Parts: sequence; C-alpha cells; structure tokens
Amino acid sequence: MRTVAVDAMGGDHAPGPEVEGAVAAVREKLAQVVLVGDEQRLNSEIAKHGHPKGLTIRHASQVIAMDEHPGVAAKSKKDSSMRVSFELAKHGQVDAVVSAGNSGAMMACGLFVMKRLSGVDRPGIVTTFPTKTGLCALMDMGANVECRPQTLAQFAVLGSLYARVLHSKPKPKVGLLSNGEEASKGTELTRGAHRMLSMPLDKDFEYVGYVEGKDIFTGRLDVVVTDGFTGNVLLKTAEGASGAIFELLKEEILKSSMGKVGALMLRNVFKRLRKKLDWDEHGGAPLVGVDGVAILCHGRSNAKAIKNGIRVAASFAEAKLPSAITESIGKHAAMWETETARENAQ
Amino acid sequence: MRTVAVDAMGGDHAPGPEVEGAVAAVREKLAQVVLVGDEQRLNSEIAKHGHPKGLTIRHASQVIAMDEHPGVAAKSKKDSSMRVSFELAKHGQVDAVVSAGNSGAMMACGLFVMKRLSGVDRPGIVTTFPTKTGLCALMDMGANVECRPQTLAQFAVLGSLYARVLHSKPKPKVGLLSNGEEASKGTELTRGAHRMLSMPLDKDFEYVGYVEGKDIFTGRLDVVVTDGFTGNVLLKTAEGASGAIFELLKEEILKSSMGKVGALMLRNVFKRLRKKLDWDEHGGAPLVGVDGVAILCHGRSNAKAIKNGIRVAASFAEAKLPSAITESIGKHAAMWETETARENAQ
Repeated sequence: MRTVAVDAMGGDHAPGPEVEGAVAAVREKLAQVVLVGDEQRLNSEIAKHGHPKGLTIRHASQVIAMDEHPGVAAKSKKDSSMRVSFELAKHGQVDAVVSAGNSGAMMACGLFVMKRLSGVDRPGIVTTFPTKTGLCALMDMGANVECRPQTLAQFAVLGSLYARVLHSKPKPKVGLLSNGEEASKGTELTRGAHRMLSMPLDKDFEYVGYVEGKDIFTGRLDVVVTDGFTGNVLLKTAEGASGAIFELLKEEILKSSMGKVGALMLRNVFKRLRKKLDWDEHGGAPLVGVDGVAILCHGRSNAKAIKNGIRVAASFAEAKLPSAITESIGKHAAMWETETARENAQ
Repeated sequence: MRTVAVDAMGGDHAPGPEVEGAVAAVREKLAQVVLVGDEQRLNSEIAKHGHPKGLTIRHASQVIAMDEHPGVAAKSKKDSSMRVSFELAKHGQVDAVVSAGNSGAMMACGLFVMKRLSGVDRPGIVTTFPTKTGLCALMDMGANVECRPQTLAQFAVLGSLYARVLHSKPKPKVGLLSNGEEASKGTELTRGAHRMLSMPLDKDFEYVGYVEGKDIFTGRLDVVVTDGFTGNVLLKTAEGASGAIFELLKEEILKSSMGKVGALMLRNVFKRLRKKLDWDEHGGAPLVGVDGVAILCHGRSNAKAIKNGIRVAASFAEAKLPSAITESIGKHAAMWETETARENAQ
C-alpha cells in the first residue's frame, strides 16, 4: 500500500478536514497517511476520531498562509507543513503529497524540492470538469499566472498525457482557451502558442485550435490549455455559476407548495446531479511536470475532498507519470524549440 | 421617439433575427429602426413579417465577418453594415446603434467614427450578470484583449457610472478580478490597477479589492473589472456552466417516471429560473467610453435579444451617458495620472 503525506495545516479550515479525511482514507485502506503539522493540535484533532493503524504524525512547526508570497514562503519556511511534506516525498519516505494550501507555494515546493522534470518549462496544475460525455482536463488551473507561449504548448503535451493515462483517452482532443474561435482572436500569448500547436508534427494529441469558456462543458474536448490566471478565473466562475443556479432554483421552489412537492419528487435527481457536479468528488488537482506526485485540494476542502485527494494521490503514485512525461516532452520538443530558436535569433 | 440603427448583417444568423427583432421593436413602439445592410435581402426578409411604419432600410454593400481583423475591417470596409450604422449615429440621423457582429470591429468603429470621449484611455464593453440580489456589471467583456493597468482603473470608473445610472446603485461596490483575494495574487496588470484603485481618493464608488470568478454571482458586488480576454472567458464559462447544468438535469429527470412527474410540477419554477438566467433578456452590452450609444448583442442573438437590444439602446440614448462619463473620468484622474507620471519618470 502507498503512503501519502498530508499537509495538515494548509487549508482554510485546517487541520479539522485534513485529519478527518486522513482518518477515513486510512480506515478505507486507500493509503497509509503521514499527517504533517503541529503535533499537539493534530493529536487532539485525531482524538476526536480515534487513531487508526497506518496513520502517523510528522511534526512541522510552521504554516504557509494563503496570503503569503508563494516563492518566498516555500523557500524560507523550511519547517512548514507543506515544505516538510514535499521533503518526505523527495526522500522516499512517502509516495505522494496532498495539500489544500496556497497553490502557488505548492508549485514552488514542487520546483524547489521535487524539481522540474527534464525538458519541462514550467510545471502546472490540472483540474477536471464533468461534461455530458465524461471528463475534461484544464491546465493550468492557477500555478503559473504569467506564461510564455512555449509553456502553453507544453501544457498541451502534459495535459493530454494526463487525459491519456488517467481518463483513458487514446488521442486526446486539445483546445487552446481564447476569447473566440477565430485565429484572429487571442492575445500575443495565445497566438504564439497557437502557432506552435498548429505545426504539422506527429503528435500524441489532436489540436483543435482556439476554444471558448463554454466549450469545456460540451464533451467535445478532452483537454483545455490556458495560463494559470485565466484557468483560475474559469474554475471559480464555473463553481460560482453552478452554485448560483442551485440557490436561485431553491428560492423559486420555496415560492409555491406545488414547487415544494415537485422538488421532493426530484430529490433523487438533484442528489445524482449534485454528485456529478461535486468538485469534492474529483479528488483534487495534480501538479504535473515535477519529479514526484503532489495533489492540490481546494482551500475550502472538506474531509471527503481530502479523502478523495489521498485516493487519487495513491493511484497517481502507482501510475508512474513522471517517466511518461519526460518521454512525451522529448517527442514533441520541435514544437517549442523552433520558436525559442527564432526568439534567440532576433 | 428615439431612432436606432440596427446592423442587420453582423450576427451569426443575420439578417433573420435582426429583421424579426426590429419589426417587433417597431410594432411595440420601443423605437424607430433603420435596418442597415443589403437592401434586397432585407426587403425579402421584411416581407415575411409585413413592413411596419417606423422601419426603414439603409443599403450597405459590405459585411464585416466574425473572423476578420477588427481594426482592418472597420477601417477598410467603409460601406459595411456596421460602419454605416455608426456613421448614421455620428451624423445625428439615428440616436444609437445595435449590432450582433464582430465585437472587436464594433469597438474599432466606436473609436474611428464616434471617437473616444475626452480623457478615456480605451472604451470597453459592459455586460450584466443576474445575481441573488440584483445585477452585477462586468467590464470589459471582450473588446480590449490587452490592457494597461490605467485602462482597468478607468473601467472601474466607467463601470460604476453605468451601475449608478442604469442599475440605480448610489455608490457601487467595485471588485478587480484576480486569481485569489490576497493582494499577493494577480498579474503585473492587476497589481498595477490594484495600486491605483487603492489610492486614498474621494471616489464615486467603493473599491473592495481583488475578487474571484465566483464573486460575480453572489450579489455582494455591483461591478467587476477585468481585461477583455479574461472577461470574455468569464462570460462564456458562465453561459457554458449554466447550459451544462440544465442539460444534465434534463438527462437525470428523464431517467425515471417519478422524475418526469416532479419536473412537470416544477415547470413554472424552471420557466421563472430560465427567464432570470436568460442572457437574451438583458438587452445586450453597451460600448462605454465613446461619444455615442452603441449596443453589442451576442453573435447568436435571436429576435428577442435584438428587440431587447433596441429597447436598451433607446433608453441609453435618453440617459445621456457620454457627458456624465467625461465628468466622472475628470474627477478620478489622479488615480491613473500618478502612475503614468511615474512610468514617464522611469
């Protein structure tokens, strides 16, 4: 069984959900867990649930807060729960890391501790959206707020590898997020990436061109590529829109007794829909492009989300993504090397 | 009664919805309408509905397509339906323009023909989202894909003026869209704008700082400011997410007879909810910051959306926004002038 380090102090409501989720994961034999954080607080939190075998504590005296500068915090807070979790993975004491903390700091820890995989420009974070026909991966969801075109071209390779291995899509359809489908749209960044991705090379994915925010839900794409700023806005907007619709629906239902009876009859329908749309079910977002397995959970993660993050972390450790990434990046390198050579010649 | 020019050739399904919407608007006495486009096609389209008094045609031989370069098309296609519509407004033959065409070209026509209002850096396009407690304005929704920090600071002024005059919010709450609420988040662009908006000046709006994509739906904000690339992604994502939820809901409902009966009882609830979320009801998105009134409708607009666009265009012409904008931009100028002076000194 794989062992997963859980940064127990990083999330908005830490360490409650982290501990409860870890206890559940261990009890369900998804993985062995090392909870990393303030020993005293973790012990008193564990006492609420009982201490299962396979759950251990590794003390860490510092915490990286959500509003800290990611790079500075990851570098200077050597005894933070997040940094220590990554060190455990680096030294082979655990197989993977789960954290609901500062996503930028997680990226920085990935870079400083696990290190970039050879040939990878910038690692990124992948998140998954439910669609009519399955799942669609979005990369990057927030780690790299400012990107080069080369980085986005690599995200197409990394994201499609993720979709191939973990969503079983043999030749993923990849779209580049823009403000319209026409090639004249986009920014300097997207136009550069579009040029690279359109190169007539033998690729492990099918590049479909520019796509819009709505396309991620249609099921016609397996991967959507964007910078971390835009990816974060897309993710939060989708969450906000779906939350708002359910609230407005509830408001309208409560206006009439007919509405209340109808809603009662649709109880199971709503339950199944909620489950399909539930971000907590998807088990967090992997940091892709570093030499190791690290799963980022939402800052507001509840125990279920942490438990699912641990489950996914264990299965990713099993799948050995890093070596597949190195190979695929090498195969597609002409895409960004041509552009980089052109830049250097100027 | 106000007279509105409708670019009848710009939308994805033009001129059908444009003509039908214009006929309906004239019949409902919302405005007089000048349909601008290919005379022969427009006449044969009008023949389907009957030709009401107050509806006239102005021939234009060219069309700006969705995939054309906005600036080039707006400048070179002098007899395009969009450009001619703007010329009619410029020369006082109509009070406002409505178009479902290329949004970038519309922005370019606003700049070339109506001209920027004095002191305005870049005009932008405002769109409106339904929230629990009313409406939230988003600026820019797609016209300015690459912005300077100064432009975003001005969007706060322009957007809040819009919210004050048209949504009756005396002191609008304005948020700056970012990838997290902490001041350490964001890009170089948002950090520059945040610095300007945080200056301790007497403002006509309340700046609440960085906000996330989900915040636009909560009702705690009246205006959200962002660049046109990100604004377009937010808008399309919200549309896509709400569409996907209703499709998934329908799918789940059809799985059981209990579901079908419950849905029947909720028929009116769904109808009211759909109406609240219906983008076509909001009557298009105004181009703010030019010396005139121009309303952009969605490329896929149906006749109802065009009709509502005409209604809003007529009421905007009534409200005389341009002079209020000039005044408000002057009042808040210290915000961006300090930054511009600093840049020039470097």
